[in-house]
Amino acid sequence: MMFWLLGVELALILMQFLFTSDAAEEIKDVISKKNHELFYLSNINLVDEIWKESRPKPPNKPVRVHDLKYAGLDVAAKLSSLRSELASAGSSAIIISMLDEIAWLLNLRGSEVPHSPVMYAYLIVEIDRAKLFIDHSKVTEEVSDHLKKAGVELRQYDSILSEIESLAAKGASLWLDTSSVNAAIVNTYKAACDKYYHIQGTKQKPRTDGSSENLNGPTAVLKFCPVSLAKAIKNESELEGMRNCHLRDAAALAEFWEWLEKEISKDRALTEVEVSDKLLEFRSKQAGFLDTSFETISASGANGAVIHYKPEPESCSIVDANKLFLLDSGAQYVDGTTDITRTVHFGKPTARERECFTRVLQGHIALDLSVFPENTPGFVLDAFARSFLWKAGLDYRHGTGHGVGAALNVHEGPQSISYRYGNLTSLQEGMVVSNEPGYYEDYSFGIRIENLLYVRVMETPNRYGGIQYLGFEKLTFVPIQIKLVDLSLLSAAEVDWLNSYHSQVWEKVSPLLDGSARQWLWNNTRPVVLDKI
Amino acid sequence: MMFWLLGVELALILMQFLFTSDAAEEIKDVISKKNHELFYLSNINLVDEIWKESRPKPPNKPVRVHDLKYAGLDVAAKLSSLRSELASAGSSAIIISMLDEIAWLLNLRGSEVPHSPVMYAYLIVEIDRAKLFIDHSKVTEEVSDHLKKAGVELRQYDSILSEIESLAAKGASLWLDTSSVNAAIVNTYKAACDKYYHIQGTKQKPRTDGSSENLNGPTAVLKFCPVSLAKAIKNESELEGMRNCHLRDAAALAEFWEWLEKEISKDRALTEVEVSDKLLEFRSKQAGFLDTSFETISASGANGAVIHYKPEPESCSIVDANKLFLLDSGAQYVDGTTDITRTVHFGKPTARERECFTRVLQGHIALDLSVFPENTPGFVLDAFARSFLWKAGLDYRHGTGHGVGAALNVHEGPQSISYRYGNLTSLQEGMVVSNEPGYYEDYSFGIRIENLLYVRVMETPNRYGGIQYLGFEKLTFVPIQIKLVDLSLLSAAEVDWLNSYHSQVWEKVSPLLDGSARQWLWNNTRPVVLDKI
Repeated sequence: MMFWLLGVELALILMQFLFTSDAAEEIKDVISKKNHELFYLSNINLVDEIWKESRPKPPNKPVRVHDLKYAGLDVAAKLSSLRSELASAGSSAIIISMLDEIAWLLNLRGSEVPHSPVMYAYLIVEIDRAKLFIDHSKVTEEVSDHLKKAGVELRQYDSILSEIESLAAKGASLWLDTSSVNAAIVNTYKAACDKYYHIQGTKQKPRTDGSSENLNGPTAVLKFCPVSLAKAIKNESELEGMRNCHLRDAAALAEFWEWLEKEISKDRALTEVEVSDKLLEFRSKQAGFLDTSFETISASGANGAVIHYKPEPESCSIVDANKLFLLDSGAQYVDGTTDITRTVHFGKPTARERECFTRVLQGHIALDLSVFPENTPGFVLDAFARSFLWKAGLDYRHGTGHGVGAALNVHEGPQSISYRYGNLTSLQEGMVVSNEPGYYEDYSFGIRIENLLYVRVMETPNRYGGIQYLGFEKLTFVPIQIKLVDLSLLSAAEVDWLNSYHSQVWEKVSPLLDGSARQWLWNNTRPVVLDKI
Repeated sequence: MMFWLLGVELALILMQFLFTSDAAEEIKDVISKKNHELFYLSNINLVDEIWKESRPKPPNKPVRVHDLKYAGLDVAAKLSSLRSELASAGSSAIIISMLDEIAWLLNLRGSEVPHSPVMYAYLIVEIDRAKLFIDHSKVTEEVSDHLKKAGVELRQYDSILSEIESLAAKGASLWLDTSSVNAAIVNTYKAACDKYYHIQGTKQKPRTDGSSENLNGPTAVLKFCPVSLAKAIKNESELEGMRNCHLRDAAALAEFWEWLEKEISKDRALTEVEVSDKLLEFRSKQAGFLDTSFETISASGANGAVIHYKPEPESCSIVDANKLFLLDSGAQYVDGTTDITRTVHFGKPTARERECFTRVLQGHIALDLSVFPENTPGFVLDAFARSFLWKAGLDYRHGTGHGVGAALNVHEGPQSISYRYGNLTSLQEGMVVSNEPGYYEDYSFGIRIENLLYVRVMETPNRYGGIQYLGFEKLTFVPIQIKLVDLSLLSAAEVDWLNSYHSQVWEKVSPLLDGSARQWLWNNTRPVVLDKI
């Protein structure tokens, strides 16, 4: 979002509400190396100038309380943990601008952002009070009571900067996560700190080294926001909600696949979007359904090789019975969030397709079965998911796993399982991650097999080093198409995994189904027998 | 190597010839945080003061030429490559103080350092000349001719600092790898640069940001020495030497193991040192044998759990027929360097010992069979070697693989296969690494299985991304004791690996053996048959 000013020395204007502080600093660095300068615009948003009167009003859909039975921990308890973190970091307040962190911390949910059950707001938590900056028209009486009970005061959304100024003026040391807080807030606080010290007539400057010493004046504490990790580690109620919604989601998918296979077998010409709409129809019938959790990737044949393919009604393809079909989709339920990819073939897959599918599956199984000591960063496991592809000179150009929120954003940090080796966040008990290796052949086909998993302590026969060994438990229970598996490539342990998975799918999901969908589930969860020695 | 001065403010005296510049700077940082100060002593070595007259003379064993048939590349060619690097880094000279890098670059070998065929020296390579700083009494006529042919001049060892001063005085921009060059050299160059600019009356200071711009005055180019990587990537002659010496080494080991098993079966009480001496005797009979490549770890029972155990003649244990015996040893040959660990049992191993051995073996096999895309750092493969132990809650507290020199140091960089995730050096074709997972049970036993491997391009059926996929080729061919393998834990692929390895061991090593040692090799390389389905 950069504009070039003509007639003056080359300069970049940055709308500071739209960039995190770190992103703005990075741009500034790059620009200064080219001998240009960065100016911040705080009272004007150039995009608004273009919109003029035609700009749509900001969203103001009502906020709702996220039930304690799904949240597991009440707001007071969450705020209390956060305040302990504040105290030990020597800071007196924290500003939170990540919408999912605010929703998680306050056990609130919104519907303003497509696919993500969050609402626009800022939150400031001090040692003895907390203030939510939000458009009051979105706050129902129930929400208002809920917040009052937790000691959270309401403030107008656009009063955030003046509040930041007041915090500095009263000498508060503010915890700022510059990787998530926007440049406007950081710059406002810095300017207010400068003003404070100027008035005090002291040369003491705010510390910016992340140290925790409060020098009796406003001090920025630059550290990662602790809410990100707290949110990533799900409690038992959140996991319970995730498990439950995944079973209902699996039931919807069984109905969908049964329907799709039948339609295709009748030579019905269905577009990728029609198929995706039908899936939404099945999902909407499930209890607690709210929304899709991201734009469905419904991709036939070569479209599957486009990793973030988005079919459009006007231009998308017909789902071809003789090509691989990749379907990556998910839903928001009142109790949890799903994200699943299956790749299927309605006719007779080629040997090439089966080999590639099988290698992707072997990587999926290897990651699923992996056990690792505590303090292991996610990237250490990434190679397990690739090793079978690598042996054939194949690979995929995306990460293997991302964090998933509990009835929140389908992508969240801080953990990941990826070849981006810089993320040292370890996988910890209760974290939810996706397991989604793939393989993509340009202009031909795409394969991805994705389940969601949660990290749990494994009952290993030993505990070398006196530490815990962790592993995964599956959340997703939808059949994997056996027709696409070249069984001759699988080890006995891999065949066992497949059979045990399908047996669990049947056991867990069949009670939610009847009629032809139940029959489909039965047909697609029968054990395979390895006929080689 | 630090001393406390009494009677003055707490200060640390550092002998700057004994620390790399980086290490000295790190100590300085730590000290300054405690409000102490670091003084360099350049004209005095406190340890020498303690030694007084009794200090042994510095070693001055004769240097020899490393034959071109083993080196593969002559000195002129190596210097020429290095000079290209100098030119593109914008530096006019490089100082090399790593002894193995000097030996490799000049195709020279020494015998002054136990286990490492290097000689004490410094080397300065300029764009148009090169100077070796060495005690002239070590330089034979052959070596002198060899150096002259390559355009390398001889200088006295102790004239290195005055040469550094001259380089600065004539405005040379010096490439300094502060992670390997000692503090005396770095400080001398910096002081001489300051002097240069003082005389020039300019305020221009030498750049220390590693940038390559020469400002018409002496400039330190702070970068890793390129010789480390050049040396790590073996050429075909070096690999040939490594392959050949490993076969002779394997023959010596077969003779040794056959002897040891026979002695133990006769109830002979042999100490760990006696056994280690006997191994040396067998190795010394092999053509081209020069030295052991490190202190042999000959460890019976609980001693095997001490990772760097060094048996002493007076105090070491008897090799117990009823305990695991771990033997980690290696040799320097004229054509290469070996490093091998085998763990055996002379009687009946426990189920626990067999399970642990088998999991270590599975990790060893997984790493050996791994295939990975180019640009993969070694740490990515580390988890392959641990995953089978992890599944049982077991692990080991050392890296899985280190680089090995070709007729040079048994430990070399820059690559490694380890859980130290900071080393981003990728594994590259021609690099030699050890594959040595282990498991250690305190006060009980130690297990390690180590082969040397070299990195090679694999003929994969695909080359996704248009890049090469790499894998390993074995250098070490010594049987793995089948008695210790719980075959029921192995996959069919792992059994195939074991049988195929033993078949290669027989094929490659049996021609070098006769009599009972050949029979031993035959007995220990028979294929195993998996009697489970």
